[in-house]
Amino acid sequence: MKKYYFDHVATNPLHPEVLEAMMPFFKEEFGNPLSVYEYGMNAKNAIEGAREKVAALVNAKPSEMIFTASGAEANNFALRGIALARQNEGKHILVSRMEHHSILNAARFLEKSGFTVTYLPVDRQGVVDPAVVKKMITKETTLISVTHASSEVGTIEPLREIVAVAKENNIVVHTDAVASTGNIPVDVQELGVDLLSMAAHQFYGPKGAGALFVKQGMRIVPLIYGGIQESGRRAGTENVPAIVGMGRAAELAKAELSARTAYLKPLRDRIIDTMSAVENVYLTGDRDKRLPGHASFCVEFIEGEAMLLLLAAKGIFSASGSACSSKALKASPVLLSMGIPSGLAQGSIVFSLGMGNSTEDVDDLLREFPAVIKRLREISPYAKGWGDREEGGACTVKE
Amino acid sequence: MKKYYFDHVATNPLHPEVLEAMMPFFKEEFGNPLSVYEYGMNAKNAIEGAREKVAALVNAKPSEMIFTASGAEANNFALRGIALARQNEGKHILVSRMEHHSILNAARFLEKSGFTVTYLPVDRQGVVDPAVVKKMITKETTLISVTHASSEVGTIEPLREIVAVAKENNIVVHTDAVASTGNIPVDVQELGVDLLSMAAHQFYGPKGAGALFVKQGMRIVPLIYGGIQESGRRAGTENVPAIVGMGRAAELAKAELSARTAYLKPLRDRIIDTMSAVENVYLTGDRDKRLPGHASFCVEFIEGEAMLLLLAAKGIFSASGSACSSKALKASPVLLSMGIPSGLAQGSIVFSLGMGNSTEDVDDLLREFPAVIKRLREISPYAKGWGDREEGGACTVKE
Repeated sequence: MKKYYFDHVATNPLHPEVLEAMMPFFKEEFGNPLSVYEYGMNAKNAIEGAREKVAALVNAKPSEMIFTASGAEANNFALRGIALARQNEGKHILVSRMEHHSILNAARFLEKSGFTVTYLPVDRQGVVDPAVVKKMITKETTLISVTHASSEVGTIEPLREIVAVAKENNIVVHTDAVASTGNIPVDVQELGVDLLSMAAHQFYGPKGAGALFVKQGMRIVPLIYGGIQESGRRAGTENVPAIVGMGRAAELAKAELSARTAYLKPLRDRIIDTMSAVENVYLTGDRDKRLPGHASFCVEFIEGEAMLLLLAAKGIFSASGSACSSKALKASPVLLSMGIPSGLAQGSIVFSLGMGNSTEDVDDLLREFPAVIKRLREISPYAKGWGDREEGGACTVKE
Repeated sequence: MKKYYFDHVATNPLHPEVLEAMMPFFKEEFGNPLSVYEYGMNAKNAIEGAREKVAALVNAKPSEMIFTASGAEANNFALRGIALARQNEGKHILVSRMEHHSILNAARFLEKSGFTVTYLPVDRQGVVDPAVVKKMITKETTLISVTHASSEVGTIEPLREIVAVAKENNIVVHTDAVASTGNIPVDVQELGVDLLSMAAHQFYGPKGAGALFVKQGMRIVPLIYGGIQESGRRAGTENVPAIVGMGRAAELAKAELSARTAYLKPLRDRIIDTMSAVENVYLTGDRDKRLPGHASFCVEFIEGEAMLLLLAAKGIFSASGSACSSKALKASPVLLSMGIPSGLAQGSIVFSLGMGNSTEDVDDLLREFPAVIKRLREISPYAKGWGDREEGGACTVKE
């Protein structure tokens, strides 16, 4: 059976050239970068080379990049590290409701530790309004964290405008750019952010490698203490092969970014246009300001899980909500915060495209997906007017 | 030029069979373990298979193993996670002076956060005395962290006896077993510890994979919040290839443990016996209760750095102090805590053997190393009676 991988927000396959770059570091170049002899120096040089490439991808200085093991680690590090470093200036933090669990749950930890967190509301497209941010700032606010782009609904946030508001008030801005880095232009100078998280496996790099951009001069309390790795800001023996892979993936992403976007956008738009025309199928997120390979929907009267399984039986692999919540079997907090009723939010499905997907793949999807919807509706009590209408009821997304 | 790798405490080369086990997960099996379809299930099954093997290596249940990205992360997680989880019962922690930076610096962070930390003294061999532990316990003590074996001096600690003292007082015990796991028998049941840290690259596994054993029923506050990975105790997309590699490395280590020990011990003993006979060269750590491939010395009148560089010029790669401190250019706190004067501690050198080292390699080392010492002493002002005798002076190790 042919397989179709439409879940690039969950993870990407590794680019063959990335694996090739990593291989020597699984074999002869196995040294610890802290060692003073040849193997150590080679490993150290490889890491510093990767740091330059990763920094270049987001227009940062190499010294501003701290390697981590994941986007989640970078997010926890940023939130907790800045909250603690600035706690004498205030203990109030603003976090948007569009955030990934690694931000939301780190924020909850901070609440338990004596910080106050305000959760920024979003509109129907999942957009944070800079004017609302401005209203919610207090004298105690030290940090704002807003995602660059949502992996669940694809919406790209107006970060520059949010940064402008923050800077008027001497507030540090972090952005979770895990879903965007390597997929759309990300420029820390242009965005004006102080901290930015990314993960290599979101742009054809390896799992186990992430990074946090920390603007020069910004103080941050470490999350993982120990040796002098990463200038004493993140301890642990460096995962040299994964870091090298991240560097190569960053280099490829920088070089191919516009070509990748030009390839993915028309495929995405065909999915959005075709599926939005199906009865009671609603696009989630912003129609235009969205990730190039991202098409997400809520399908009324159907459970996301059921769609996933029926599609998977046909070799079509997709997601419902974020990868981290797909097994939690709860309606996504992101969709709920956008004003989508919980019944409809249960019918969430996300197709995220990558460079391995062909036009024919999308043809096949657009033939199979409506058939799956039809079949599931035939057996759905909600679709027949049974069950809890309030739950599965009227859609508030389409206006 | 032939190369001799005698720095297995810094990191190990990857076992070829480990790399072989990892390769499919860099290629066709690239899925996110949280995804519900085939690729996701295969990745999830691979992780759970690895968890069984890693658990078996230390005689734990698979559900008691939490994967991390490094030993340092496991150590930070253990210390901070238990300190916070038990803070209503007390805010006092005991940590030995033999600990790795990832324990000592995490302890310092806890001190800044309102906890009290007492640092357990050690004897000349680097051994923590359970009777001293008993004396230092207060009603506020919730956690004791003592390393299983020191990577710097090779000494194996009397953990069972320390655990016995702790259990009389309802205190949780963590051990940093990064240097020991896979190299000597490690059995969490027999040791009686509640938490135990390990790192795959210390037993021919990959960098980027570690684990924390957390005894069933033990509450621990996460270090990295986010999705539901690792039962909600450690978030971040799993580094599937590295975890699979750790599993295979654990399996190999379990099967080959006694053969490895039988091979390494005689090589180690030859180094210790030959070098201890050289004038003003002193073994550090316990002569017998030590890691099987570990030979560490202090060489009077000479800087460790100088020995490393001269040996490296001959293709012989070793370490001075721990990997994490070797570039910090300070006398090792571990050696100082053992009562070694700082001048002598500067002359620290560690040879740590692995399965790639042959008898001939050791012959060559034992020819070259005394020659290096001789050459350096010829140019040392201390060896000629010049300089600060107090610094480079009388050795207090040999009794």
